[in-house]
Amino acid sequence: MTTDITVFTTETFAQRMRRAADDAAAAGLAGLLVTPGPDLVWLTGYRPTAITERLTLLVLRPGEDPQLLVPVLERPDAEAAAGAGALTLHDWTDGSDPYTAAAALLRAGTAFGISDSAWSMHLLGLQRTLPGTSYASFTDRMPMLRAVKDADELARLAAAGAAADATYGDIVNVAFAGRRETEVAADLARLLREHGHEQVDFTVVGSGPNGANPHHEAGERTIEEGDAVVLDFGGLMHGYGSDTTRTVTVGTPSAEVREVHAIVREAQQAAFEAVRPGIACQEIDRVARRVITDAGYGPQFIHRTGHGIGITTHEPPYMVEGEEQRLVPGMCFSIEPGIYLPGRFGVRIEDIVTVTEDGGRRFNDTDHDIAVVG
Amino acid sequence: MTTDITVFTTETFAQRMRRAADDAAAAGLAGLLVTPGPDLVWLTGYRPTAITERLTLLVLRPGEDPQLLVPVLERPDAEAAAGAGALTLHDWTDGSDPYTAAAALLRAGTAFGISDSAWSMHLLGLQRTLPGTSYASFTDRMPMLRAVKDADELARLAAAGAAADATYGDIVNVAFAGRRETEVAADLARLLREHGHEQVDFTVVGSGPNGANPHHEAGERTIEEGDAVVLDFGGLMHGYGSDTTRTVTVGTPSAEVREVHAIVREAQQAAFEAVRPGIACQEIDRVARRVITDAGYGPQFIHRTGHGIGITTHEPPYMVEGEEQRLVPGMCFSIEPGIYLPGRFGVRIEDIVTVTEDGGRRFNDTDHDIAVVG
Repeated sequence: MTTDITVFTTETFAQRMRRAADDAAAAGLAGLLVTPGPDLVWLTGYRPTAITERLTLLVLRPGEDPQLLVPVLERPDAEAAAGAGALTLHDWTDGSDPYTAAAALLRAGTAFGISDSAWSMHLLGLQRTLPGTSYASFTDRMPMLRAVKDADELARLAAAGAAADATYGDIVNVAFAGRRETEVAADLARLLREHGHEQVDFTVVGSGPNGANPHHEAGERTIEEGDAVVLDFGGLMHGYGSDTTRTVTVGTPSAEVREVHAIVREAQQAAFEAVRPGIACQEIDRVARRVITDAGYGPQFIHRTGHGIGITTHEPPYMVEGEEQRLVPGMCFSIEPGIYLPGRFGVRIEDIVTVTEDGGRRFNDTDHDIAVVG
Repeated sequence: MTTDITVFTTETFAQRMRRAADDAAAAGLAGLLVTPGPDLVWLTGYRPTAITERLTLLVLRPGEDPQLLVPVLERPDAEAAAGAGALTLHDWTDGSDPYTAAAALLRAGTAFGISDSAWSMHLLGLQRTLPGTSYASFTDRMPMLRAVKDADELARLAAAGAAADATYGDIVNVAFAGRRETEVAADLARLLREHGHEQVDFTVVGSGPNGANPHHEAGERTIEEGDAVVLDFGGLMHGYGSDTTRTVTVGTPSAEVREVHAIVREAQQAAFEAVRPGIACQEIDRVARRVITDAGYGPQFIHRTGHGIGITTHEPPYMVEGEEQRLVPGMCFSIEPGIYLPGRFGVRIEDIVTVTEDGGRRFNDTDHDIAVVG
């Protein structure tokens, strides 16, 4: 599974930084300000050991060399990053003002994009130090920054999806009845690692009424005969994410579970079939929602239909009402409609999908039928 | 060790929220805006399963009931938090504008404090929606919010410190020579858990030249006879942090390591003895730095002397030049001077200290001598 995985080199990161700076100019921005987290990893390969109150800031400006400001005590770590050879390092020392150091790399009176998750404390520090400068979040002004994946990234996402599918193939053979959700969740985590994930991010086991809470993780509830169980799991493999959901039943599903499951399955399939270049993200949401609404369960589908995935498991593009962004080949996102009946059960089916030249391709393709577990 | 640990109740959180709102008023703010992370855990006991792009916002205003805005699909989790009984819940749905929903809970033309780590995307959304409103980070305007610990919190920090000390007592008996740093780091993690930590946050093992990089974690280097090894480890116990550092040597220390260690030890002791109510934080830094500077190693002490600790391991008050905040009984912070000789070795000694009515009290009190390990 790892045979087609290439290593990201200094040149990979140099190209990404150049393109990001050019995209910023095209979006009417003077440049981009990037703080630790997925944007910085994607652009430079640099991941500080922790995201803290100390400012680390990458400044990208079109036509200029990238500049990375770091706390002096983290300089050796930054120098060791794969992308360090493609940027100029600057540092600041505890007790000095990092925003003054950052301001020297910016230019007053211009507009910058800034990482979504940049700490407000840092943004406020920049706003105070350079009052004439304005800022916009990447999601607001640069949503496409990491949205279209290249061949090396698609290979990683495909590998992560295949590993998640192998995990699902194994989990339906473990015992459910009589065990706690947390035990099945531990099995999921173990299997994801066995199938090559270096990081497990979530292992949702929502049994019976817990399945009706879409963000339930896994608790002390003992799974019972007859339960519908939502399994939603994923993590990182070669640095890229997996995220898939199937709903199984312990023993034969009830007629109601079968009916609800069939509606969700139809919604998921319809949304998948709607995927093609040029269609708006919100349309994917509308297609799934229409199936569920027409079946009378609209109010029980309480979240958007999907989210982008890459080096994080939630990123643009979002398949949500109001998102007019058009699909482009290479985008990757989840399609995960669900129906949640409070106090009773929930059903969700989720695949990661990528946009191809003429439609969509699933990175998850395990059976969409209800699996009956023991 | 757990006998004196009380449970935080709804009333605990109600009191904290009331006091925070009153403190905000005293600081000239109309209220506080709190996003997921340590502030929200401390004020409400609520920890969403993940910190994501979906806005969750606690609004505290003096004399008014606390209001918590959450994504509708996370409402069941929020309702289950211990502090939920002391606040009013509101929710917003995917596809609607969360900033409009938040704005309804604020009042234009006023100033709010906002969590340091609130996503810039959210702050920019609020600034756009309520252009007349201004914001300041908690560290800037409310640095004392969580800085003074009450008796229940001090008991937790003392327990965490005792567990870290017990870990150190055990680690000096494991084999160092011939093993990789990551193996000793795994021992540290295991021991922290055995001694009661529910979470391990860092296990630095900086051997030989790696010890000269203060933020080195643990790598593949094999530890050798004669190495100085910096051990810096901690995590959470009953929700509160530990963080201690000792420098050991594999076999007899060289004369140079002994000399550098003695200087760091003297600096750490001098800073500890300077702790008393009313002294400025920067004075603690100056006392430690003076010892090291006088010994000729000033340029090799490349970080501040300490940081506050509580439910996070880095929080105000910071022992750093420029910090004029005065110490108050109940504050807890690290004292951790170090000397780093690039390419050769490093030495750091760190204890967590709390301010008492008449001085300081260490939560870490293992021997400050160089331990010789095998």
